[in-house]
Amino acid sequence: MPELNIAIDAMGGDNGPSIVIEALEKAVHRYPDVKFTVVGHEQELTPLLDKFNLSSHPSVNLVHAEQVIEMDDKPGQSLRSKPESSMRVALQTLTDGNCQAMVSGGNTGALMTNAYFTLKTLPGVLRPALMTALPNQTGGKSYLLDLGANASCDSETLFQFGVMGAVAAEYLSGVPAPKISLLNMGEEDIKGNDVVRNAAARLAQCEQLNYIGFIEGNHLFSGRADVVVCDGFVGNVALKSCEGLATFIIDQMRDTLNSHWLYRFFFRFLQKRTHKSWDRLKPDHYNGASLIGLRHVVIKSHGSASAGAFYSAIQQAVAEAHEQLPERIKHRVEAVLSEQL
Amino acid sequence: MPELNIAIDAMGGDNGPSIVIEALEKAVHRYPDVKFTVVGHEQELTPLLDKFNLSSHPSVNLVHAEQVIEMDDKPGQSLRSKPESSMRVALQTLTDGNCQAMVSGGNTGALMTNAYFTLKTLPGVLRPALMTALPNQTGGKSYLLDLGANASCDSETLFQFGVMGAVAAEYLSGVPAPKISLLNMGEEDIKGNDVVRNAAARLAQCEQLNYIGFIEGNHLFSGRADVVVCDGFVGNVALKSCEGLATFIIDQMRDTLNSHWLYRFFFRFLQKRTHKSWDRLKPDHYNGASLIGLRHVVIKSHGSASAGAFYSAIQQAVAEAHEQLPERIKHRVEAVLSEQL
Repeated sequence: MPELNIAIDAMGGDNGPSIVIEALEKAVHRYPDVKFTVVGHEQELTPLLDKFNLSSHPSVNLVHAEQVIEMDDKPGQSLRSKPESSMRVALQTLTDGNCQAMVSGGNTGALMTNAYFTLKTLPGVLRPALMTALPNQTGGKSYLLDLGANASCDSETLFQFGVMGAVAAEYLSGVPAPKISLLNMGEEDIKGNDVVRNAAARLAQCEQLNYIGFIEGNHLFSGRADVVVCDGFVGNVALKSCEGLATFIIDQMRDTLNSHWLYRFFFRFLQKRTHKSWDRLKPDHYNGASLIGLRHVVIKSHGSASAGAFYSAIQQAVAEAHEQLPERIKHRVEAVLSEQL
Repeated sequence: MPELNIAIDAMGGDNGPSIVIEALEKAVHRYPDVKFTVVGHEQELTPLLDKFNLSSHPSVNLVHAEQVIEMDDKPGQSLRSKPESSMRVALQTLTDGNCQAMVSGGNTGALMTNAYFTLKTLPGVLRPALMTALPNQTGGKSYLLDLGANASCDSETLFQFGVMGAVAAEYLSGVPAPKISLLNMGEEDIKGNDVVRNAAARLAQCEQLNYIGFIEGNHLFSGRADVVVCDGFVGNVALKSCEGLATFIIDQMRDTLNSHWLYRFFFRFLQKRTHKSWDRLKPDHYNGASLIGLRHVVIKSHGSASAGAFYSAIQQAVAEAHEQLPERIKHRVEAVLSEQL
């Protein structure tokens, strides 16, 4: 396997470069064979690299970028007026062949636009998709896509998302013949709209895929499917609604615990002794959405990620680069499209 | 106020008529001034009514229906081949003027089709919508619609859902000038698709409405909006995904509690002492989705509802009938549509 080099946009995210460099320090130790190219404003990053003893570390290379894309920059504008942004410079290390994956916690719209413009989609791939892994009740992971790269999709695009998601489940989670499903408002064949029904017919026809039918939202975490496909509008709302519910429950628990010291004591006791079974569900571990369908690996970290969460996004980038996911997707898409001919 | 009479389809739901009659007994005592018309198979219902001492109760009237719509009957088929179903007979008590609201735990698709056919939409209303109340972090409720009556909607339909939802929030929750929002994959004006953007423009123009803009899924439970509008596909997936996450968390908690008797002891202790603050979040209390936009009140109870949950659906029916919700929606829709002229 060739040596990996991961480009990191150090300037994106709400918490500034400090959490990025803290995450980098962890990654440098975890992956001694991987190189990291940190992109951002030199003056701002040098003291942070010094702080973590990374300034002259053989695995770390600092690349200066003059501009920063702000969280409220419009995607198109960021593309036209900020060609020297840390995000764009980091993406260019991929097309230059210097790096194999890129991680950014910056403006999602700008990342999708800049990545699409800089990297292009793989041959045959209609649209890139934003994909995340979700924990499920069987102890494994389910891959959900699209999470918002495409407000609406035609059925062929949904079909391709199924193909790409299956490659991810197979190579990142080691699932043979991943079960692919379409998210719908019912399980019966007649449910939903023409787009999902046509996508279902297309997926069912394809002999190389293990399509299991429609699933409803209540099976998003049940593990019934390894890959759950929907358009970006539906996926975004589904994922964020779950985020909203989780926040609500946690707030309510906090109120309960704050109402008596004894409850807090009980809770800490329970927490200490059961953290192993809960640990895998921590949102931090699932930080790092993949923008798949492009010619290189691009990972979007949550804007408000902590250092631990950003580290998970770096891990995701290493895993996808290590598995050469874009190459695998390219071959699978080619194989599936040729089946049709 | 005229005397209320609530029609109850006793044959719908996975748990059979026994939970319906158990819920009825509770409702009869809670609402001594309300009459109840129980519709279903006489031979099956009589022993159950006897069991709960309701056979000769002055508030309870049994109406025989020969047919039952099964959970797997196709909606159109149920309409054509089962004109004597308990569901249809119960709906007809509304058009006959004998009852003011109807509750059913039966086949959702069949209920929507039979209700639409039997009752028709209110003048000016394009489409009925399925609506539910959700608890929120401010201690109040937010109304979410549509939950699946319409797989796709045009912008005028979404606009009308906003109008109808606001009437519900105003009269059922007592919120003056309810904050109306559209569920979208981002908060910026440019986000989403043409349908939501046009609906947003339409809502913003209307002076009689308090439209606050787009919200994302993570604000579904925050209380930022009193009314959250989306098409039935998105609403169905959002609500069911939350259901799926809640099930996952509860299962995970059960595993934790089952791993040691001490944890169970702690939990029961905590549960007893904090049940008040958690009680309002129990799903049972939110059972009963309203099919609004029709000329009469129709409430859909969850198919797997317990007696307690079915009782909540009856309460919802009584509240909407008491507030004459269809009449109020009719006037508001008229007023809003005339503003446009």
